Amino acid sequence: MAAQPARRSTPAPSAEPRGRRLSQDDRRRQLIGIGLQMLASRPIHALSIDSVAAEAGISRGLLFHYFPTKQHYYAAVVRAAARRLLNAAQADPEVAPDEQLRSMVAAYVGFIDRHLEPYTAFFRGGAGSDPDIREIFEGIRDTLTERTLGASQVSASPATRMTVRAWWALVESLAVDRAEHHVTTSEALVRYAVDALSDLLARADGLPRSPGSATR
Amino acid sequence: MAAQPARRSTPAPSAEPRGRRLSQDDRRRQLIGIGLQMLASRPIHALSIDSVAAEAGISRGLLFHYFPTKQHYYAAVVRAAARRLLNAAQADPEVAPDEQLRSMVAAYVGFIDRHLEPYTAFFRGGAGSDPDIREIFEGIRDTLTERTLGASQVSASPATRMTVRAWWALVESLAVDRAEHHVTTSEALVRYAVDALSDLLARADGLPRSPGSATR
Repeated sequence: MAAQPARRSTPAPSAEPRGRRLSQDDRRRQLIGIGLQMLASRPIHALSIDSVAAEAGISRGLLFHYFPTKQHYYAAVVRAAARRLLNAAQADPEVAPDEQLRSMVAAYVGFIDRHLEPYTAFFRGGAGSDPDIREIFEGIRDTLTERTLGASQVSASPATRMTVRAWWALVESLAVDRAEHHVTTSEALVRYAVDALSDLLARADGLPRSPGSATR
Repeated sequence: MAAQPARRSTPAPSAEPRGRRLSQDDRRRQLIGIGLQMLASRPIHALSIDSVAAEAGISRGLLFHYFPTKQHYYAAVVRAAARRLLNAAQADPEVAPDEQLRSMVAAYVGFIDRHLEPYTAFFRGGAGSDPDIREIFEGIRDTLTERTLGASQVSASPATRMTVRAWWALVESLAVDRAEHHVTTSEALVRYAVDALSDLLARADGLPRSPGSATR
């Protein structure tokens, strides 16, 4: 999300010549980058579209050419944040399944540790008021779940999928609490989470199918 | 939340004489009840304050006398939903700890099963854009966590509190997925969740304190 350590040494978008002609894609990227920075430190309702446009050196009207409403703009920013999270938490198919899983969880926990404020602002404890944002959030969970099922090499039954998805909810809560309260070390938390998944999957085998069960 | 089976046989608020004089408290309650019903089936941004006022038989201006903005009104409705959830998921100190825990989880899972749409609309996968809503959501988690620590009779260390909180995130995800996809039975899910908590707490004993750990 915003303020990644690696980017601090490169010029911030605002240091670029303002208002210069950018391609449509570059302009969108610039506006989203500004949003990631601004929304890292203030809630959406405190974000002024005028200040985003001013930061980009363009008119308010031009911003609305790219994003028809503030809600569209916000969704684009959150979508970019989700992409960064999912890029960080890749499963590397070159390594052993256990290590794939461990490194994916470590990347996720580390991402939340580095980006706690924007993460909680974008994704936690929602006013589920915005279906776009909910869809982005559910998309993160779905992608992480599929990657985990792949890395764990368990059969992707409805019960294991439900379990892995719920386990990601557990991991998110652990990662946020750890980042906020420094309860334990990252390494210990990652190990704890990976072990917990083994326990949960072992027990999930015993879950009976519901009479009206779906087969997804 | 809205549309409780037990209430279907009693007159809906709209069946009451419209616009009649109510006490301030009764008027607030009436308006919140209308919101619970309307927001069960549509997202907040599709809710019109005019239609709420019309349903109550009062003017838009009078509604804003009770709730200064739409956001205030929405927060009041979500707060009422949270209260209903927490009332449903009580820990009964009269019964054995295991049974306290089981019945609390069963009530929570049952509540989400009966109120899936409003629950997800109000509480899931947020646009964390509204700090009030986030606070209500975190409040539910905190209350359930304290009740669980009480019922489980484990020592309330930072690690066990973090674990129990994360376990509620797991239970929420399980309950929502079960209600949506009927993966397994409620009874099996409740047993699964309670067993998972034992596993998680047993492993949490091994978590080392972080060097900068908080002591909450």
